[in-house]
Amino acid sequence: MAKEKENKNKKTGQIKKTVNVGILGFGTVGSGTARILVENKDLLSARLGFPVTLKKIADLDIKKDRGIALGKDVLTTDARQVTDNPDIDIVVELIGGLGVARQLMMRAIKNGKHIVTANKALLAEHGQEIFGAAKKCGVNVGFEASVGGGIPIIKALGEGLIANRINYVYGIVNGTSNYILTKMTNEGVEFSKVLKEAQELGYAEADPTLDVGGADSAHKLAILASLAFGIPLSYESVYTEGITGITPLDISFASELGFKIKLLAIAKAADGQVELRVHPTMLPKDYLISKVDGVMNAIYVNGQETGDTLYYGRGAGDMPTGSAVVSDIAGIAQRIMSGAPPKSGLGAIKMKKSGPPMGLRRMDEVESMYYFRFSALDRPMVLSKISGVLGENNISIASVIQKGRKEGGAVPLVILTHKAMERNVRKALKKIDSLRAVVTGKTCLIRVEGEE
Amino acid sequence: MAKEKENKNKKTGQIKKTVNVGILGFGTVGSGTARILVENKDLLSARLGFPVTLKKIADLDIKKDRGIALGKDVLTTDARQVTDNPDIDIVVELIGGLGVARQLMMRAIKNGKHIVTANKALLAEHGQEIFGAAKKCGVNVGFEASVGGGIPIIKALGEGLIANRINYVYGIVNGTSNYILTKMTNEGVEFSKVLKEAQELGYAEADPTLDVGGADSAHKLAILASLAFGIPLSYESVYTEGITGITPLDISFASELGFKIKLLAIAKAADGQVELRVHPTMLPKDYLISKVDGVMNAIYVNGQETGDTLYYGRGAGDMPTGSAVVSDIAGIAQRIMSGAPPKSGLGAIKMKKSGPPMGLRRMDEVESMYYFRFSALDRPMVLSKISGVLGENNISIASVIQKGRKEGGAVPLVILTHKAMERNVRKALKKIDSLRAVVTGKTCLIRVEGEE
Repeated sequence: MAKEKENKNKKTGQIKKTVNVGILGFGTVGSGTARILVENKDLLSARLGFPVTLKKIADLDIKKDRGIALGKDVLTTDARQVTDNPDIDIVVELIGGLGVARQLMMRAIKNGKHIVTANKALLAEHGQEIFGAAKKCGVNVGFEASVGGGIPIIKALGEGLIANRINYVYGIVNGTSNYILTKMTNEGVEFSKVLKEAQELGYAEADPTLDVGGADSAHKLAILASLAFGIPLSYESVYTEGITGITPLDISFASELGFKIKLLAIAKAADGQVELRVHPTMLPKDYLISKVDGVMNAIYVNGQETGDTLYYGRGAGDMPTGSAVVSDIAGIAQRIMSGAPPKSGLGAIKMKKSGPPMGLRRMDEVESMYYFRFSALDRPMVLSKISGVLGENNISIASVIQKGRKEGGAVPLVILTHKAMERNVRKALKKIDSLRAVVTGKTCLIRVEGEE
Repeated sequence: MAKEKENKNKKTGQIKKTVNVGILGFGTVGSGTARILVENKDLLSARLGFPVTLKKIADLDIKKDRGIALGKDVLTTDARQVTDNPDIDIVVELIGGLGVARQLMMRAIKNGKHIVTANKALLAEHGQEIFGAAKKCGVNVGFEASVGGGIPIIKALGEGLIANRINYVYGIVNGTSNYILTKMTNEGVEFSKVLKEAQELGYAEADPTLDVGGADSAHKLAILASLAFGIPLSYESVYTEGITGITPLDISFASELGFKIKLLAIAKAADGQVELRVHPTMLPKDYLISKVDGVMNAIYVNGQETGDTLYYGRGAGDMPTGSAVVSDIAGIAQRIMSGAPPKSGLGAIKMKKSGPPMGLRRMDEVESMYYFRFSALDRPMVLSKISGVLGENNISIASVIQKGRKEGGAVPLVILTHKAMERNVRKALKKIDSLRAVVTGKTCLIRVEGEE
C-alpha cells in the first residue's frame, strides 16, 4: 500500500526516482552543502531509501575551485536555471542578505519549488511574506540552518518539544561575539583588539556590525520565539544591545561576583506576554551555558514538561551549516517522495489562528537583575546618594563592591541588584548620571540572569 | 490540493478529524503522557492543526487517583480494548519489561496500530522482531522516549544529523547512576550508602541492578548505535560494566588527575568497525559533559560534518518522558492525517540493505587510556616490577601517583596510561595481580576518555 503511493507524480503518472536540488550561492555554506550532497550521496541514499541529486548551482563566480567533484553543466551563472528549472524540486537559497536572495526565493516559491535556506535575516525581516507565499503555493520552507548552524535546534523546538508549553528559550547564537567575549575573558584584553585579531583570523567579518551589534542574534531570536510561542516573527520588537561596550574591567568584576558575560538572545513567556531581548548578560559561572566558549553556540529550551534542555554545537561554518541544510533537504525530499502535503513553515502561522494570543512585553516592563558600574567620585556621601536614588525607584541592592582610592577622582563602584523593572532602572540611572557631584560619566549597565 | 489529500480514509472515504490514542500502562510515564494529552490538548491541536484524542488507558489498577481529568469509559483493565480497538490509531506501550509488553505490542502491530513506546529493554532485545513486524504491517514505531527522556535525541540523531557520517556517540544515559556518582563525588561517601539514600528518595528502584549494573545504559546504547551507524540492534554485544565497584578513593584520585568519573555509554566507529561499551569512565573535568550532574542526562554526537554536538536534559520522570512520548504521537498523527507512508523505524533496518557494512569491534581489541589503582606492597622494586609487566605488554605509562607509607603493608599506587589495547591490559593485570610479592589484591581499572 505504501509502496504504490510513493514516488508517483500525480500529473504525469511517472514514478519519481530521485529528488533534484538546485543551490543559489556557492559561497561558504553553498560549498559545504554541495560537498555533503556529492560526497555523502551514497550515505544519504541509503538512509533515505532514494537518491538526492544536486542538479544545479548558480553563482556569479563559477571559476573558483572549491575542490568538489561536480558533474559538467552543474555550475551556472544564471540563477533562473535554478529557480525556473522544471527538473528541480528543491531550491536552496544560500546567497544571504535581503536583496536578490528575496527576489529569487519568491520567484522559486511561485514556481512551486520547495525552499531550504540559512538566511535568518530574510526570514526574520520578511518571513510573513515568504511563509505566506509558500503556504499559498503548497511548498515547504526548511530553515534548520538559520539558527545554531549544525545544531538541530529548529527540529528540537518545533517537533521534539511539541508537547511542551515553552517557558523560555535563551542561548548563545552568535559565534563571533562568543569568540570575542571568550578571548576578552581569558586574556583580559580590550574588545577592539580582539575584534581586529578575529577579523584577521576570519572569525569576524570586515563589517562586524551584524554580529557584535546583536542584530544577527536578534534575527535568530525572532525565529526561535515564533516557533516556541506561536507568535508572529517579531524582529523589529527585539530589544537589541551588542557587545561593543563590554570592557575587561566589567568582565573582571563579573568574575569576582561569580559570573561570566555572554551575549544572550532571550525569549521568555510569562502572564501571556513574551519578552524578546538580545544583550550582554551575566550568568552564574556554574551554568552549563557559561562554559560554552569560543565560536560554539548553545541554546537552552525550558519546557513546562521537560524542564531545562540544552543543545550545543558549532553555530557556523561550511560543513556544520551545510549539515543543517542537508537535513532539511532530506526531510522535504522524504515528504515529496511520500506524497505528503507540506508542513506549515512556522509554528507561528498556525498558532495565530487557533492558539492563545500572546502579546509582546515592552522592554520598559521587563524585570531583571542588574549589574551597575558607576564611575563614582571618591568622596563622602556618594554611595548614600546612589543607593538613595535606587531605593526611590524600587531598586533593591543585592551586593556592592567598592575598591581602590582616588581622592578627588573617580573609582568604579559596582552594585548588583535584586529583580527590578527596566523602566525604573533607566529612570534611576538617568538621575544618577546627572549628579555631577556623584559620578563622572555614564554608568555601565549589564543585565544578570540566574537565581535571585 | 493538500487539503483534499489530508484526512481522507482510503477504505471508507470518510474524512478523518482526529487521531485516537490508547495507552497501555498507567504508571509513571503513562500518567505523564495522559496528563499532557489531556491538559495540553488545545495547545497540541493548535500546533498540529487537528486534535489528538486519548481514547483508552488500560492498567490493572484503575482505582488509584492520578489527578488527571479523564472522560468516563477511558479507563479499562482490559488491554484488548486498546490493542484491538478499531477506533484507536496509535497504541502507546508504557508497561515496560519484556513479557506482557512484548505480547501486547506485537498484537497491536498485527492489528495495524502504530506504536509509540518508551521500552528500551524491549526494543534493544527484541527490536528486530518488532521493527520487522511493523514494516510488514505498514505501521510506525516511535521510540523517542526510549533514550534520554525529555531530550529529543532520537530525532536529532535520526533526522537532524542525517547528513553526517557519525564518528561517535557517547553519553550519560542513566540518571540513577549519575545521581549516585554525583553524590559520591560531592560528599565523598561510599556507593552502598548513596544507593540506600537514593532508594529512600525514589531515585533508585528497590532492585537497582538494571541501572547501576549498566544494562539500562547498554539498552539505550544499542538503540543509539543502530541509528548512528546503521547497524542492527546489538545489545548482546555491548561490553557492560556498572558503577558498583567505584570507590570514593578512585573518585578522589580521579579529581587529583583532573578527571570526573561518569557512567558512559560509548559507541565509536573507526576503520569500518563499531565499538560498543558501557562502563565507568574518567573524563577531563573541563568537558561539558563532566558538568552534567545529578539525575541529568547528556549525549555527545560527533558527526563528520557538524563536529561535536551535545544534547542535555532530564533523562527520566513522568513529564519529561511523557513529553517525548507525545512528540512521537504528534509526529505519527501528522503522518496519519497526511496519508504519508510509515517511516522505517530505525535507520538500521534500511542501512542493512544498502549502507556499507559495519562490523563490531571485540572489546579485546578496543583501545583506550586506562587508570589503574594497584594495592601495592610498600617495598622496593614494586613499581619497577609493575611497570615492567606493563611495558612487556605494550602499555605505556602517562603518569604515576604514589602516596602514603605503610611498610610491610599495601598502599594505593595509581598509574595512568597512554592508549593501550584492552587485550594487553587484561593480560598485564592478570600477571600483576598474581604477583603476591607486589600487590595484595585485585587491581582497580577505570577507562579514561579525552585527548592523550
